[in-house]
Amino acid sequence: MIGILGGGQLGRMLSLAASRLGMRTHIFCPDPDSPAFEVTPHKTVAAYDDEAALAAFADAVDVITYEFENVPAATAALLAARKPLHPGVNALAIAQDRLAEKTFLASKNIPVAAYRAVATLADLEAAIDALGLPAVLKTTRLGYDGKGQRVLRERTDAAAAFAALEPKPLVLEAFVPFEMEISVVVARNASGEVKSFDPAENVHTNHILHTSTVPANIAPGVEKHAAMLAKVIVVALDYVGVLGVEFFVVPGTDRPSLIVNEIAPRVHNSGHWTEAVCLTDQFEQHIRAVLGWPLGDPARMADVVMENLIGDDVARVPAGNTQPHLYGKSEARPGRKMGHINRITRRF
Amino acid sequence: MIGILGGGQLGRMLSLAASRLGMRTHIFCPDPDSPAFEVTPHKTVAAYDDEAALAAFADAVDVITYEFENVPAATAALLAARKPLHPGVNALAIAQDRLAEKTFLASKNIPVAAYRAVATLADLEAAIDALGLPAVLKTTRLGYDGKGQRVLRERTDAAAAFAALEPKPLVLEAFVPFEMEISVVVARNASGEVKSFDPAENVHTNHILHTSTVPANIAPGVEKHAAMLAKVIVVALDYVGVLGVEFFVVPGTDRPSLIVNEIAPRVHNSGHWTEAVCLTDQFEQHIRAVLGWPLGDPARMADVVMENLIGDDVARVPAGNTQPHLYGKSEARPGRKMGHINRITRRF
Repeated sequence: MIGILGGGQLGRMLSLAASRLGMRTHIFCPDPDSPAFEVTPHKTVAAYDDEAALAAFADAVDVITYEFENVPAATAALLAARKPLHPGVNALAIAQDRLAEKTFLASKNIPVAAYRAVATLADLEAAIDALGLPAVLKTTRLGYDGKGQRVLRERTDAAAAFAALEPKPLVLEAFVPFEMEISVVVARNASGEVKSFDPAENVHTNHILHTSTVPANIAPGVEKHAAMLAKVIVVALDYVGVLGVEFFVVPGTDRPSLIVNEIAPRVHNSGHWTEAVCLTDQFEQHIRAVLGWPLGDPARMADVVMENLIGDDVARVPAGNTQPHLYGKSEARPGRKMGHINRITRRF
Repeated sequence: MIGILGGGQLGRMLSLAASRLGMRTHIFCPDPDSPAFEVTPHKTVAAYDDEAALAAFADAVDVITYEFENVPAATAALLAARKPLHPGVNALAIAQDRLAEKTFLASKNIPVAAYRAVATLADLEAAIDALGLPAVLKTTRLGYDGKGQRVLRERTDAAAAFAALEPKPLVLEAFVPFEMEISVVVARNASGEVKSFDPAENVHTNHILHTSTVPANIAPGVEKHAAMLAKVIVVALDYVGVLGVEFFVVPGTDRPSLIVNEIAPRVHNSGHWTEAVCLTDQFEQHIRAVLGWPLGDPARMADVVMENLIGDDVARVPAGNTQPHLYGKSEARPGRKMGHINRITRRF
């Protein structure tokens, strides 16, 4: 019995993958309408700080994982004291805090954008002096899909942006003149085996991922470099599970350089294409790692594009030669991820 | 909400496919330990002749399908009177009765083994006179995995075999000197769209499917002929859903001929390979047909072998570069299908 914290679409797809491997899953989520509650009879509806509910959940399962990086530290500690928690408490603490993450990555010589911690408005003024403008001011926690960040173009933007962004502290990042965003979904198990899927080229619309295209339009050397950096990160974190690594591709005189934008300690939206064209998809790969199994084969059988279905986009399904994944959400609100489709663009 | 009769591995995999498409599923099965009960919160534990439970089940769902051909006629009629049932009552009645099936196929000029109905021992003696020996005596209903049949080699085998096989009536089939068994999984939706997966070459051990290999070692012309015969069958049945068609390949002077062994009005064990190498697998294809959606793309991305895990075979998982599917059955009894693995043998 695998316990999964979070009942959104990622938890749902993790549960489906676990079921294919003969496992049972127990979903813990405060929202009684969680999509993942429809794919298993075992659930707990409770707040993430409900210690009695968490303890009962831990007692009911054999191993625990999660679908989102904002699991409170106290929640993770309580669970990890009772049952194996993968990815572990340390990796979670780093990946859920933008400042801790950048400090960690920089300490391992992973290239990141220049940054400064910003606790006060005076810190922000000093950070602008150091990094120049434009720059991006971000919360250190709880940001996603473009939420929790503001681009600063003029010094006069600073005070309002500082006041608006919560929770504090913040971090100021130098603007990166990237030509493309790519991501690598990498997996590591407790034996130290590491396998990554091919890099995807990501396009965002309104700060939400729109498409992931594989292969990315980058040279083989850049692909290998991205995979190598992803491997360095999971090894340095002593990581168990699947990790999403987002990179900026920055044009260079010789070849493009890669800068890590952020890491996500979970299955990743930009890895959904793996379901269509890999013998082992990212969800199964994560479950294998969590179970202590050998990792599966991440090689691709075709070129593919994943497209998110946001809000009313979901009305486009059913369509012809695509692989639709729908999350069973009751209401198609604007900006809400309702599903995705995988489309093969070239067979080998 | 899709209602599924039967809670074994096929019902479980149908439910998982429906969940990927954003549907909810309700499983109806008399066995409280059914594997499919672990992949949805909606279930009914009741006998297939419990009319009150069937009515409540029908009222709770939007459309109904099933994982096995032995759905009692009265059950199917009761359900079909309340909600759409796919495949329909007529196709089910034909496919669950070996004699009705052979009569139907022969009436459509589909080649089948020579056969005679056997209600009495005198019928059997006359059938042996007509068809010769060896021949195979089979029940008309409820046979599977080699159960419900006896090979007759000598006339002296007749009385004991007749006495042993239940329920009556029986059917005697002439022995077919086949060199290979292949199967085609074909789908048809209510709009009349028909798509089939490539034929699989099947090897049985102890009368249970052991491996399905794709492509089958047959000429392209034989592949096309098999697909054509499968299409004729689903069109003639006005069929909605996925149908498994098993063929004997019989050596010929010019080219091999095909004889239909049997049809199964459901997803089929010999189609499990589709999960590994097709954009749309047989389970999604069945759900698409049941929902009235356009059929998906059945083209293969690689060569593949599916191997059943019978009884203790399941201990071989986890293994390296395979795609395992485990059914979550509590006890690995000898002869019990516990899971299967898909292995890619050649990438295109």
